[in-house]
Amino acid sequence: MLIWRVNLQSGSLQREAVPESWSRLGGRGLLARIMVDETPPGCDPLGPNNRLIFSPGLLVGHMLSSCDRISVGGKSPMTGGIKEANAGGTTGLKMACMGIRALILEGQVTAAPAARADWRVLHLSLDGARLEPAADLVGLGVGEAAARLLKRYGDQVAVALIGPGGEMRLSAAGIQNLDKDGVPSRIAARGGLGAVMGAKGLKAIVFDAAGAAKPPLADPEAFKQAQKVFTRNLADHPQTALYRDYGTAAMALTCNALGGLPTRAFSEGSFEGAETLSGEHLREVTLERGGESTPTHACMPGCAIRCSNNWGGPDGKSLVTPLEYETIGLMGSNLGIADLDVVARLNWEVNDLGLDSIDLGAALGVAVRAGLMAFGDGDRAMELLREIRQGTPLGRILGHGAALAGRVLGVIQVPVVKGQAMSAYEPRAIKGTGVTYATSPQGADHTAGNTVRAKVDHLDPKVQAALSRNAQISMAGYDTLGACIFAGFGFAVAPEVIPGLLNARYGWQVGGDILQTLGRETLSLEREFNKRAGFTAAHDRLPEWMTLEPLPPHRSVFDVAEADLDGVFDW
Amino acid sequence: MLIWRVNLQSGSLQREAVPESWSRLGGRGLLARIMVDETPPGCDPLGPNNRLIFSPGLLVGHMLSSCDRISVGGKSPMTGGIKEANAGGTTGLKMACMGIRALILEGQVTAAPAARADWRVLHLSLDGARLEPAADLVGLGVGEAAARLLKRYGDQVAVALIGPGGEMRLSAAGIQNLDKDGVPSRIAARGGLGAVMGAKGLKAIVFDAAGAAKPPLADPEAFKQAQKVFTRNLADHPQTALYRDYGTAAMALTCNALGGLPTRAFSEGSFEGAETLSGEHLREVTLERGGESTPTHACMPGCAIRCSNNWGGPDGKSLVTPLEYETIGLMGSNLGIADLDVVARLNWEVNDLGLDSIDLGAALGVAVRAGLMAFGDGDRAMELLREIRQGTPLGRILGHGAALAGRVLGVIQVPVVKGQAMSAYEPRAIKGTGVTYATSPQGADHTAGNTVRAKVDHLDPKVQAALSRNAQISMAGYDTLGACIFAGFGFAVAPEVIPGLLNARYGWQVGGDILQTLGRETLSLEREFNKRAGFTAAHDRLPEWMTLEPLPPHRSVFDVAEADLDGVFDW
Repeated sequence: MLIWRVNLQSGSLQREAVPESWSRLGGRGLLARIMVDETPPGCDPLGPNNRLIFSPGLLVGHMLSSCDRISVGGKSPMTGGIKEANAGGTTGLKMACMGIRALILEGQVTAAPAARADWRVLHLSLDGARLEPAADLVGLGVGEAAARLLKRYGDQVAVALIGPGGEMRLSAAGIQNLDKDGVPSRIAARGGLGAVMGAKGLKAIVFDAAGAAKPPLADPEAFKQAQKVFTRNLADHPQTALYRDYGTAAMALTCNALGGLPTRAFSEGSFEGAETLSGEHLREVTLERGGESTPTHACMPGCAIRCSNNWGGPDGKSLVTPLEYETIGLMGSNLGIADLDVVARLNWEVNDLGLDSIDLGAALGVAVRAGLMAFGDGDRAMELLREIRQGTPLGRILGHGAALAGRVLGVIQVPVVKGQAMSAYEPRAIKGTGVTYATSPQGADHTAGNTVRAKVDHLDPKVQAALSRNAQISMAGYDTLGACIFAGFGFAVAPEVIPGLLNARYGWQVGGDILQTLGRETLSLEREFNKRAGFTAAHDRLPEWMTLEPLPPHRSVFDVAEADLDGVFDW
Repeated sequence: MLIWRVNLQSGSLQREAVPESWSRLGGRGLLARIMVDETPPGCDPLGPNNRLIFSPGLLVGHMLSSCDRISVGGKSPMTGGIKEANAGGTTGLKMACMGIRALILEGQVTAAPAARADWRVLHLSLDGARLEPAADLVGLGVGEAAARLLKRYGDQVAVALIGPGGEMRLSAAGIQNLDKDGVPSRIAARGGLGAVMGAKGLKAIVFDAAGAAKPPLADPEAFKQAQKVFTRNLADHPQTALYRDYGTAAMALTCNALGGLPTRAFSEGSFEGAETLSGEHLREVTLERGGESTPTHACMPGCAIRCSNNWGGPDGKSLVTPLEYETIGLMGSNLGIADLDVVARLNWEVNDLGLDSIDLGAALGVAVRAGLMAFGDGDRAMELLREIRQGTPLGRILGHGAALAGRVLGVIQVPVVKGQAMSAYEPRAIKGTGVTYATSPQGADHTAGNTVRAKVDHLDPKVQAALSRNAQISMAGYDTLGACIFAGFGFAVAPEVIPGLLNARYGWQVGGDILQTLGRETLSLEREFNKRAGFTAAHDRLPEWMTLEPLPPHRSVFDVAEADLDGVFDW
């Protein structure tokens, strides 16, 4: 195992040994450790002293179902705090096979936005590392850029790259990764890490794993046994079948029934058009239309769940992959759009720009409130997204996401925490997820600890803090393992499988509470970084308007006590 | 003495007695007290729970030279912290004569940007208060709007009003006040208080003091004596003559000589065109051109200094009043413009929009770095400002000031602290003012404690914290008295005049350290508000790039120790 450290300013490319204190961490936990150890908390997120770090989770590299995720991190230009965004695809897998525990990018080509000739591609292989010119890729969407990179470097490489959004240093820019079919569609979307990569002058990173093998196992037999238990439990879980058939879009009708489907710029919690946005509808139409799109597919090689939706047009040709529930909520019901063909086109556009579809959907909702478009007007929404590709002032405003768009356009009813947009779970109706939005060191983010699947009264403010706490700890743990949240369907039945897998892989003797231990440690480090960067309890709040304006249909406001919010991390 | 409390949401208009704990405060000190007592620190600056407060300083009402300033305050949409911005003109004087210690505005007509019919004018007189429709004023610049208000309400009233900038909720929008000649030119410029007023749906406040008299004096004879000493000391001070002749523009050559004149987007500290931007040049040309403009004039009735510059065109007609040094620095040298005719036209435009010329000048500097204009191109600068009046996306970006413009346009070399632009004193060359920029609860602001006149080595990082501390305490004290910084020329010679005036006016027995006592108390309250709003020592820093990039001609970076910054308020 090794660390690659690349300085874009000096051009230095160094292999380093993994320090002892980093050696038992991966993914989100390792990012947090490196950020606290190395990154000045007061640094400008787009300046030379910020780090952009890639690290596969601890279990990555063996095609365990749903456990090959790549974590990307740094100081977020969107929140001003620590950021981890993870994604499926093949980046994590290739990095693990190449023995790379973390890739740390430092410096920047120029403080000013880079000229065409300054842009670089970083190429990593077992032979070494090199920086190459990227002038021919500048301005290209991720689809075209990835195709050229695969042509240049061979179709077996993994690629992490930014689109025009990251080049423009837009705060909602993410980092796209190739899926198992070579399509740049698995985005580490949230918090503007694509802008950090863009500010460093780096268009793409190519991971060429030629000659590499799966990471060694300390006890192959024990690993195989644990894997077998995990895989069986996962397959047997009823939710697995639900997501396999309907994908993440299965959540649309659930949230709508809870009154928690963001509708018309977060002004309502249920949508009359929810039916045609649902996973059930998606499956039915997709099977009916036939063609190249399947209702769902796997975002990582070896995944048994295959929760990621696709969508093809009436002609059977793929319109977009993936089409996740959160995008359906934010670019569908949130914009008063009930037509998946329309949502799919909007989604393709932001994917290709390398932008976060959640923050962009929320930003378009802000645009409606500002009078720039009408609810339900998909054509106008597409026009607005095209402004981003053209780099117009309005395009830039929207491309920075909802918080900045609200600020610039004078709209205060904006669904954000720490400058980052909420996902498709209305916090006034699903209040546990609201607690997570408020208190997560990551800003508003359902992946930091979603409570929607808990069997509780989601409107009762009193029971939410404990729910969110447990969800946040587990998720920080899973993100350190490189496991998808849905891997939890398998792990929850037999939690001893987690230490079993870790011990078999690394020869460790970790105990049954390792998931929680990793989760708590990660959250503590993240909160430590944020504290040094200037965050206090005052930042762990939902926007004021959501505590004042009742949400139909329940006429509920967000009313979890501030003391409960402040106690979430008292464990 | 009374408090007026007006709720724009409910339409309630109430006279209240002055609470005991507010009764010995005025101006900035009273604003801080009211903010801590009443305003939820986590409120949205543009939401219903923010207060917009007007309060004349303690000495206001007697036409003491340079002592009739109006303080305006609230939570700033620009910094997210407490904000006080003060101005000359007649608002403070009329309020004091009407016995109004503070006017507190609460609520808002609508959370969404107000429709034309929703806008209001608030009219206050000895008879009472009323809210009237303002539909006919919406969209007007402050010049035209003020003229109509004076026509409607008589030319003896004082008026505080916003321009299109405040209506659009732009973060750099200030609140304009009439000068002694009825021109809306005395702006409480900084930190976006005009946006707070706009978010409340209030276009203007009319203070009709008909029937009012100067505030009563506890000991008229003692007041007269103290006033006499103060006025004589002020008149005898050598700086008074300097500012009387050359106005604030006298500072241009001083700062240029120190290498501290912001030049070409804060990339250099001296400007080859400084001579034609100087107070000496301004005076010479103005006298030569003749016509209606004088080199300097008084911004408040009774001021003996008359430091405020004017500028007329070649035809003798006024181009702008005032034309202050800070605008000359930010819209002149900072943009590579050496022609005062050009600077004056840009200044007029932002004044009429009701925007802060400091933040707008800094934002135009950002626009140059973003490739939207070239240094020295005044025509293009004017085009960009006109975009604001048109309400275009680019206009909005610039109208929010430098910090937001930098964020949206992807520029990180932006001269801001806490989101507010620095004034025309380069902190890498005048490091004491840099300490003030970094640590003031107000964000970067020379009026919070400028050290440029101190006889020290301005480049020596070791001596600056103490200088800034003393300057900040004094300024917070002066701002509580309603005294201009230049009143200090008179007070400094015989500091006992300050308690003498206060005791004679109010019948108090305050001691010789009252200025420092008021200053410390005010700063402590402001810091308390900011702490509750989420500010920490991490926010008391200059932008990282100014600690990394050397400034010509001294090749100096900002290198005051962080421990020194953290100790500024340990008194």
